[in-house]
Amino acid sequence: MIFGNLDDVREACRDLPAGDAQAAAAAAARQANLTKPPGSLGRLEELAIWLARWQGRAVPTLERAAILVFAGNHGVAVRRVSAYPQSVTEQMVANFAAGGAAVNQIARVAAAELCIVPIQLDRPTADFTSAPAMDSAEFLAALNKGYEQVRDGCHLLAIGEMGIGNTTAASALCAALLGGSTARWVGRGTGVDDAGLRRKRAAVESAIQRHRGMLDDPLATAAALGGRELAAVAGATLAARHRHTPVLLDGFVATSAVVPLVRLNPAVLDHCRAAHVSAEAAHRALLRKIRMRPLLDLDMRLGEASGAAVAILLLRAALSCHAGMATFVEAGVSGPDGS
Amino acid sequence: MIFGNLDDVREACRDLPAGDAQAAAAAAARQANLTKPPGSLGRLEELAIWLARWQGRAVPTLERAAILVFAGNHGVAVRRVSAYPQSVTEQMVANFAAGGAAVNQIARVAAAELCIVPIQLDRPTADFTSAPAMDSAEFLAALNKGYEQVRDGCHLLAIGEMGIGNTTAASALCAALLGGSTARWVGRGTGVDDAGLRRKRAAVESAIQRHRGMLDDPLATAAALGGRELAAVAGATLAARHRHTPVLLDGFVATSAVVPLVRLNPAVLDHCRAAHVSAEAAHRALLRKIRMRPLLDLDMRLGEASGAAVAILLLRAALSCHAGMATFVEAGVSGPDGS
Repeated sequence: MIFGNLDDVREACRDLPAGDAQAAAAAAARQANLTKPPGSLGRLEELAIWLARWQGRAVPTLERAAILVFAGNHGVAVRRVSAYPQSVTEQMVANFAAGGAAVNQIARVAAAELCIVPIQLDRPTADFTSAPAMDSAEFLAALNKGYEQVRDGCHLLAIGEMGIGNTTAASALCAALLGGSTARWVGRGTGVDDAGLRRKRAAVESAIQRHRGMLDDPLATAAALGGRELAAVAGATLAARHRHTPVLLDGFVATSAVVPLVRLNPAVLDHCRAAHVSAEAAHRALLRKIRMRPLLDLDMRLGEASGAAVAILLLRAALSCHAGMATFVEAGVSGPDGS
Repeated sequence: MIFGNLDDVREACRDLPAGDAQAAAAAAARQANLTKPPGSLGRLEELAIWLARWQGRAVPTLERAAILVFAGNHGVAVRRVSAYPQSVTEQMVANFAAGGAAVNQIARVAAAELCIVPIQLDRPTADFTSAPAMDSAEFLAALNKGYEQVRDGCHLLAIGEMGIGNTTAASALCAALLGGSTARWVGRGTGVDDAGLRRKRAAVESAIQRHRGMLDDPLATAAALGGRELAAVAGATLAARHRHTPVLLDGFVATSAVVPLVRLNPAVLDHCRAAHVSAEAAHRALLRKIRMRPLLDLDMRLGEASGAAVAILLLRAALSCHAGMATFVEAGVSGPDGS
């Protein structure tokens, strides 16, 4: 699918495939027979059933797990909202290609394929304090780029991002679409000092003021305040839903990128889990707002899908139990009350 | 080392080896040079440095990771404090041997050796509502059994337990050694109903009353209210410290088992991390009391080292980054402010 205009995206968010309730029920029934007190594997049980629902089989697999990292550059970086220069986005993409970044290492441990998708790094978005970050055509191109990365036959997608300045875009999106004080949504990102934090807040406040006329339109807001890699995260998340592929969302920026979709349809993330909650305080507030409980809470705040990659390991543990454990009958273990 | 009497154990808890501060400093320095904002891998960084401290090398390894599961039976089971009959302890040991339990599957995913140590399953401890669970000799034998399981050359130990009725023993130990209302420490364990929960509370209250004369002696309390597998957990944890082996403690029961050691010396768990916090509410209260922050919070409540086995995966992710990431200089990535 290629979205030709914003109405196509709105339509795609309205018309969402449901998960496979039968597969989920079969997975739950299987869990109930395994040699453990019912429910005692906690979220590992829930994860196995969730994977079953979206893969459409009682015993899901992670043979083909992929990590998608979208990268983009941001005009608002000229406002000195990051501790790092904009050139670091491209340098980190080279680092990903050379295998030297955190997500390269974790992807190997998690046995997941890593796919890095830089999007027009030589064309940063406009500085959104003075103009919309992207026009509709640019936004749609980035969204389509993300959508196209998702192929059939993938058992799980972990989705993340990289882009100097993009926590400022994420904060602006959250402030615009979820409300509350700007300060609540702005944090230190990669680690700006107090002056940098003031500049970030000022940039977000100024952007909200400038674009206040369009903030009731989630997609227009995503174009005005987001970024190419954020639009691609949204596109890939939507594509995964259409292909019945379960998704692990990475941190604050990746989660903020799908908020416009949530505003269009609150059920749009049923095939997603929040991989972790970031040390960036706004992420916890955001997850609470959209009612997602993170799988991990490890004070990570790196982005580049690093938290989502770690969470793949939890899914592997969950599935190993789901697929490999003996049932009470098979093992000759008594049930409650000696049955 | 074999402990001949309780004073030997007290002495071993007083005389604890420290970690390697130089290796920890070298690991921290390494982390600071890797291609990520400082601190942005959060607890994954802390875990790599912790492993470095206890393994005594700047780049630690998990080539030989082992999971120890101690199993024991409990006289207090006659008070119908568990949803399962006592025979399940032995049946589950057979299930471990056959590879059918949860921890078998997770150990395989975590590439850890699994070692099951049943301790006199045909000789349950005494019902501690009417007599001490163990006399000193029995307690020491179980402690020594645990101590002996830990060999040189192990890079990490995950320690857990299995024993029908043992959350009742764990609750009694916590109530005796940490104070507060009995109700706070007693939960549903494997899943007892309301009547079972009342029986558990009554058993713990009755035990605290009966043995109140000795509760100022942590080891005597461990003998009177604990269990063989709990004593073995304490012995193995102490042995790991003496061998500079880092330890992941599993859930409520395994953590309660080391509280007597903590009462003898609060520094005794410096080489340990709490792998997870259990759905058994008393575990969260216990971890708060002994100031340990769990790595995972997945509503697990199975025991058998299942939570600790999952946490090994986090350590593998942490070490993969620590050992495999490029430095800023190697990757040609700019530092803060373009440096």
